[in-house]
Amino acid sequence: MVSIIKKLINKPEDVVREMLEGMALAFPDIIRLDQQWNNVYRRYRKPSYKVALVCGGGSGHEPAQAGYVGYGMLDAVAAGHVFTAPPAPQVFAAINEVASEAGVFVIITNYTGDVMNFGIAIKMASAKGIKVDHIIVNDDVAISEVSKRRGTTITILINKIAGAAAEEGWSIEEVKRVAQKVLSNGRDIGVALTPCVLPTTGKPTFELAYDEIEFGIGVHGEAGVRRLRYVPSKELAKMMVDAVVDDLKLQKGDEVALVVQGTGGTPYMEKFLFYRDVRLYVESLGLKVFTSWIGEFFTSLDMQGARVAILKLDEELKRLLVAPAYTIAIRTPGVVVS
Amino acid sequence: MVSIIKKLINKPEDVVREMLEGMALAFPDIIRLDQQWNNVYRRYRKPSYKVALVCGGGSGHEPAQAGYVGYGMLDAVAAGHVFTAPPAPQVFAAINEVASEAGVFVIITNYTGDVMNFGIAIKMASAKGIKVDHIIVNDDVAISEVSKRRGTTITILINKIAGAAAEEGWSIEEVKRVAQKVLSNGRDIGVALTPCVLPTTGKPTFELAYDEIEFGIGVHGEAGVRRLRYVPSKELAKMMVDAVVDDLKLQKGDEVALVVQGTGGTPYMEKFLFYRDVRLYVESLGLKVFTSWIGEFFTSLDMQGARVAILKLDEELKRLLVAPAYTIAIRTPGVVVS
Repeated sequence: MVSIIKKLINKPEDVVREMLEGMALAFPDIIRLDQQWNNVYRRYRKPSYKVALVCGGGSGHEPAQAGYVGYGMLDAVAAGHVFTAPPAPQVFAAINEVASEAGVFVIITNYTGDVMNFGIAIKMASAKGIKVDHIIVNDDVAISEVSKRRGTTITILINKIAGAAAEEGWSIEEVKRVAQKVLSNGRDIGVALTPCVLPTTGKPTFELAYDEIEFGIGVHGEAGVRRLRYVPSKELAKMMVDAVVDDLKLQKGDEVALVVQGTGGTPYMEKFLFYRDVRLYVESLGLKVFTSWIGEFFTSLDMQGARVAILKLDEELKRLLVAPAYTIAIRTPGVVVS
Repeated sequence: MVSIIKKLINKPEDVVREMLEGMALAFPDIIRLDQQWNNVYRRYRKPSYKVALVCGGGSGHEPAQAGYVGYGMLDAVAAGHVFTAPPAPQVFAAINEVASEAGVFVIITNYTGDVMNFGIAIKMASAKGIKVDHIIVNDDVAISEVSKRRGTTITILINKIAGAAAEEGWSIEEVKRVAQKVLSNGRDIGVALTPCVLPTTGKPTFELAYDEIEFGIGVHGEAGVRRLRYVPSKELAKMMVDAVVDDLKLQKGDEVALVVQGTGGTPYMEKFLFYRDVRLYVESLGLKVFTSWIGEFFTSLDMQGARVAILKLDEELKRLLVAPAYTIAIRTPGVVVS
């Protein structure tokens, strides 16, 4: 008996390629797909005038990262297989494709495979004479040891803010400085109500009882801080916001951007309801919400759950956050819903 | 023992109100929420210069319909409880709030409760001297008897196209004519891979075996045409497109808009992959895709599945479809992703 993976897919080994083909068919004005690699490039000539931004990582986190290629954000994305880092030659190909005189800035999420393969690719690019620098994003407060923190939603805010800076012609040193500021000022936390089911195996990545929530979940279903018995939205909102606010040491009167998202399988009703509870609690702490993003930004396949990210803002970050962008998943100015 | 409904909600009876509060908190520039009713209004003074558009129905289909209130689409939405029509006095309140000299055009989905309650509300409005007309949307090809067809995705395309016409100052007779054209030219079909779980009871609306797909599913989980054993995305795409294309009697060379959406719990990866298969098959039939909408438009809570809608276009519909709109969930011009 052949086991059935009941998903909208064809062959499991083709899911990433066929997904990217769908994006390229729908948005040929924004992206183009590499013939050889699962790399997505911004649709334009080489951006010789600006720093090129490259991101990537395993797939299954859509719209991350291919959904953020376009004006005001990324120039190239290297998409690995599901929850698997892309190999170094693929990442190098992405860097090489968009390399400009101004240099390439690479945004890496803090997972062993990504750090290793992107690191090798950066060395390959340097050896070829490409000016290249990078940031490793570790924003997930679930892990207490900072160097081990995983890269999650703040990656997207770096894509946006560093992307706007690059679009304005900033030097690679300045792009890196503002990216580091976003990382210093931003934190994320996630919860799972259900596991995600891999399209490659048809199996869930972990088990949760009918009354359990995994608090501090990773974006691949890595274990969190602890398992909770179910609590209502308001209480969960408070716990998640507290975790982020305490880590960032936010003060009354601080201005923030708020990202409230589902984890891939969370319905709109719950996303908007949960946003309400997060927003009201954040405001009750005396924080000022400058803008919000609500939707799906860095997901875990079909997991039901939520992530909350907060970015402390100053005038520079505010301006770059709402600066024009036109990608598949994020279009500013305006409040973002994806 | 108290049963647990593991969702991002507080009290089940508050889900609709709290969801709408979340939308209003996030988008105060687009919508405002009625104090008494779960009605959402466009943020502006009474539109005396234009026909006002009113839609609504049960909740659980987000972003339908509150997500479509705004410039170039709807003026008011009456949101019922989960999968339940709003009562007639609530619908009347929505009509009355936005009534203008130019009249009110009401878009009704073809479900018993909606047809009855919206019908009573229209009579109440007429009795009060409000100029009012309506359309009943029945676009779901799963039902063979046309008068019994359910209102699904074409409702959103009517909101968009009739909304653009109203924004341009067309008369109520002209708005109705173009809405009827959209209904004549558009059809929808849905499939479920999983049932949806009600936030009110925590129970699934139906059962499906591990290898079964419900073909022709309704947006509340009403039974479809038949149960299939699982087929891959390409094959499902062909079956769904054939059902719509045959019913519309489309011909080679026809220009169409294509709506490919998840049903609330479908991950992005599968939506883009399935879009690819639908798009390639539609083009293989000799149809020309003028524009696409990909995302979530008329959902069924957290159901995993897909809906495909096709609208045959002429020059008038093409222009109105891409005319400017600014709502929570749909912003044109441009390919839409929600």
